[in-house]
Amino acid sequence: MVNDSEGRIGLKQPKIMGSFSGHALPGTFFFVMGLWWSIKSILKYVCKKQKQTCYLGSKALFHRVEILEGSVLVGMALTGMAGEQFIPGGPRLTLYKEGQWNELMSWHHFTMYFFFGLLGVADILCFTIRSLPASLPKLMFSNALFVEAFIFYNHTHGREMLDIFVHQLLVLVIFLTGLVTFLEFLLRNNVLLELLRSSLILLQGSWFWQIGFVLFPPSGAPAWNLMDQENIMFLTICFCWHYAVSFIIIGANYAFVTWLVKSKLKRLCPSEVGLLKNVEREQESEEEM
Amino acid sequence: MVNDSEGRIGLKQPKIMGSFSGHALPGTFFFVMGLWWSIKSILKYVCKKQKQTCYLGSKALFHRVEILEGSVLVGMALTGMAGEQFIPGGPRLTLYKEGQWNELMSWHHFTMYFFFGLLGVADILCFTIRSLPASLPKLMFSNALFVEAFIFYNHTHGREMLDIFVHQLLVLVIFLTGLVTFLEFLLRNNVLLELLRSSLILLQGSWFWQIGFVLFPPSGAPAWNLMDQENIMFLTICFCWHYAVSFIIIGANYAFVTWLVKSKLKRLCPSEVGLLKNVEREQESEEEM
Amino acid sequence: MVNDSEGRIGLKQPKIMGSFSGHALPGTFFFVMGLWWSIKSILKYVCKKQKQTCYLGSKALFHRVEILEGSVLVGMALTGMAGEQFIPGGPRLTLYKEGQWNELMSWHHFTMYFFFGLLGVADILCFTIRSLPASLPKLMFSNALFVEAFIFYNHTHGREMLDIFVHQLLVLVIFLTGLVTFLEFLLRNNVLLELLRSSLILLQGSWFWQIGFVLFPPSGAPAWNLMDQENIMFLTICFCWHYAVSFIIIGANYAFVTWLVKSKLKRLCPSEVGLLKNVEREQESEEEM
Amino acid sequence: MVNDSEGRIGLKQPKIMGSFSGHALPGTFFFVMGLWWSIKSILKYVCKKQKQTCYLGSKALFHRVEILEGSVLVGMALTGMAGEQFIPGGPRLTLYKEGQWNELMSWHHFTMYFFFGLLGVADILCFTIRSLPASLPKLMFSNALFVEAFIFYNHTHGREMLDIFVHQLLVLVIFLTGLVTFLEFLLRNNVLLELLRSSLILLQGSWFWQIGFVLFPPSGAPAWNLMDQENIMFLTICFCWHYAVSFIIIGANYAFVTWLVKSKLKRLCPSEVGLLKNVEREQESEEEM
Repeated sequence: MVNDSEGRIGLKQPKIMGSFSGHALPGTFFFVMGLWWSIKSILKYVCKKQKQTCYLGSKALFHRVEILEGSVLVGMALTGMAGEQFIPGGPRLTLYKEGQWNELMSWHHFTMYFFFGLLGVADILCFTIRSLPASLPKLMFSNALFVEAFIFYNHTHGREMLDIFVHQLLVLVIFLTGLVTFLEFLLRNNVLLELLRSSLILLQGSWFWQIGFVLFPPSGAPAWNLMDQENIMFLTICFCWHYAVSFIIIGANYAFVTWLVKSKLKRLCPSEVGLLKNVEREQESEEEM
Repeated sequence: MVNDSEGRIGLKQPKIMGSFSGHALPGTFFFVMGLWWSIKSILKYVCKKQKQTCYLGSKALFHRVEILEGSVLVGMALTGMAGEQFIPGGPRLTLYKEGQWNELMSWHHFTMYFFFGLLGVADILCFTIRSLPASLPKLMFSNALFVEAFIFYNHTHGREMLDIFVHQLLVLVIFLTGLVTFLEFLLRNNVLLELLRSSLILLQGSWFWQIGFVLFPPSGAPAWNLMDQENIMFLTICFCWHYAVSFIIIGANYAFVTWLVKSKLKRLCPSEVGLLKNVEREQESEEEM
Repeated sequence: MVNDSEGRIGLKQPKIMGSFSGHALPGTFFFVMGLWWSIKSILKYVCKKQKQTCYLGSKALFHRVEILEGSVLVGMALTGMAGEQFIPGGPRLTLYKEGQWNELMSWHHFTMYFFFGLLGVADILCFTIRSLPASLPKLMFSNALFVEAFIFYNHTHGREMLDIFVHQLLVLVIFLTGLVTFLEFLLRNNVLLELLRSSLILLQGSWFWQIGFVLFPPSGAPAWNLMDQENIMFLTICFCWHYAVSFIIIGANYAFVTWLVKSKLKRLCPSEVGLLKNVEREQESEEEM
Repeated sequence: MVNDSEGRIGLKQPKIMGSFSGHALPGTFFFVMGLWWSIKSILKYVCKKQKQTCYLGSKALFHRVEILEGSVLVGMALTGMAGEQFIPGGPRLTLYKEGQWNELMSWHHFTMYFFFGLLGVADILCFTIRSLPASLPKLMFSNALFVEAFIFYNHTHGREMLDIFVHQLLVLVIFLTGLVTFLEFLLRNNVLLELLRSSLILLQGSWFWQIGFVLFPPSGAPAWNLMDQENIMFLTICFCWHYAVSFIIIGANYAFVTWLVKSKLKRLCPSEVGLLKNVEREQESEEEM
């Protein structure tokens, strides 16, 4: 009904989002971050379990890593914000031009990046200034996700059925990630919640890629029929398969990190490993949360 | 509007879901699992209450039972997945054929089975590898249920009113079960939450049967009028009656298991029963959670 | 659109719900129970606060009171169920007659009463058989409320706008009560949650009366215009005023019960009251939850 | 469709809400309260962190401040209620006049003020009568917010698209504030939840101003096109920017209050500051919640 100002004319104006690469970019970002966060959570969990025998000074290390992570987030957010503004066809910091709003889609993406930048700032502040509450980054993270979900929810007015459907699934996964992060904020140090969040972030990343493939098929493949009910039926299960794959990735990560820590431990403190195994066997249920 | 590729032509093509037996099968599965889970929870609870006097070595036993349960789940999921694929009229692992999606309904069911298979795998892994967090199976269970609810929610586009209504109730009960299981994951060892989950699983099982009776009346009974408001009114309370019956089943289970444990205890350690009764009477409120 | 089989022909067939008295009856029931529950919660809270100086043996008393409450609930539920069935115009235990469903509205109310009866049974069982988990009645209570909300939600298909609106508000308050009761089940012994639940039960009771006045104005007053937007606007704030009144009632209850307990204490153990006051002043924050 | 009795004829009848100043007034109120609550929370948190070395008798002070806050709230609510009634064009305590409801919009606002008045009363009572549960004001606060959200939700029947959209965002933020306040009631003394609530209150305040600017542009600016999709797109991100600003305000507040407390401490107990810094460094994770 309403003219779709992003999708169909994406070939003429090289906007960062209305194209395949515009979806692949944030997809790659979220996928990499999801991988990284899952590795960090697993590493923290495995190190904590084996703290009794061979403590690697990991706490100070993790603090430094958090600050680095925050800096990377701020850098990425600034790049994204600048890119949205100054790419050819971007708004160039002009919000209102010639009696109408100027490139609101870019401003939408700009706003999302800004909130992820705030998360990075909170990360850095929280691990340098010690009087700040330790769970502030979790809160800012869930805020950034809720804001992202809110913006995407109001992003697709007047588009085609399938276009709306894939973005609704995106909103669903972002909203769920926000909820899980908020739960993490309330109940700290639950490794499974952290892994659940990482798997949802991975899902978000790979779903961005899927949206790119559906709406802007690369290499001249024919476009999908945006009004076909069958395509919705397929994308429903496709979404579940992406989720299954993210689980499998996290499982493989877990196996790999555990193996790495154990083999490294064996090299560092070989004599204690025999003892370690016995200790491990006796403590099972009270450690996790 | 859209042609209903599952329901009305179910007599010609013997698809596993679009028929009475196709609903009776998962119904039986969930009913049996609900019964089993309720018995397991009650047994665990009753054993824990009487641990002080006559401990039956139940912890190791329960571990072995969990691994067995996981294996059964994996077996059932594999059977279901194979059945969906290779039944006459199934997709035979072909997703896309002759320019259109191939038997997406079967792929939907295939995906649901897959996630229950993941639950089985998590069950087995978690009780063999001890370093894994103990509440992983709960998380995978709630994931499997949420995925099931999500798929069923997107399963009934373009069907008749009553058909949609009975599936909406199914989605409702599956979603609630997922929520309760997630709560169990957060607050471990609350016996009432476990029984609530079991009762919802029982409800899901018997509701599958009810759907079979409504949409595919066996033995040549006349079909229900799918557009009649009165039928919706009836199915609303019918749903509640199923729920009431599941409560009564769980109550009977509780009485039976308690009686069994007590009578078995009497045989195993007869001299201590007198003491036991006094002990029992004094401790009442602090044990449950 | 659809013919309204309950409301407008309520003058010919004296059905228990489709009339003023049919709404006044459950309204009175819920109002009385709300009053009683608020008094019980306050009494328990005030007694617990002053336990140190003059314990009135209240625990055994409260157990007996709970059993009595359960019996009253079972009695009321049985009366309600029998009334729904055998009132002139009721279904007389016949569900299906002459090719169509028989008096489904009465069966709806019958089902609601049944679940409140289950709550009564759980109350009795839980306080006689001590091995049962102590929070079972809370769970059954929230179940009864969710079932009631579910049935009312599917109760008003095809009625007029205002009729639907007042029933939607009823569903809202019942659903919220269910949520609060479920929270009580998870977090036990929080007096404010109990009072919040009581105030919502009071609101439900008085809202039943309001529905009676709106849909079946007694004493020959002219009927309300069921299609007028202004009436919805008014009923919105009317609902809030009912809520405010329920708060004020609970506040008055609190003042009255506190005064009663204090004056009774003064008579029972006069010499200790001076001490009591000092003790009271020092303990303030750690007692409540 | 329905004639809009508030917006378009707001120029003729100087109603308190249907005008720019009618939105600026509650906006200013919420903004000031949000600022105040954020300062209070930060002050409490910073004082608690440094309690070990230089306790300023803050508990008694905070009690007195709470009572003052309650009185201010009661005063504001009474003023608002009186203003709504007796302003030219107000209902003057007449609910029903000449066969129709009299100025229901004013009665809506009257009801909202009343619930904030109840919050003030609860504040005063709770900090004068010590036997009352300490978290009562939080519960009344979340109640007042839920009632406000409920009334605003039913406030905009039959208006234009953009008018409805800005009010929906208002309902969203009020509902979220109510949820966060309810969480605060359940989990007491979490400083980040308190700051989150303050930031949402700030957002509500500034959004009231935004609504005023959109619907009633001051100083004769041309009105916004209430049917333009692009305006919705803009207001979506505008809402997020307001939120970002409220975060920045709270961050600045935090920095300012911390600096103030530290510099004041230095003056009051200069010799202990060196010790203080060491103490501070060692305790980091266990203090917050």
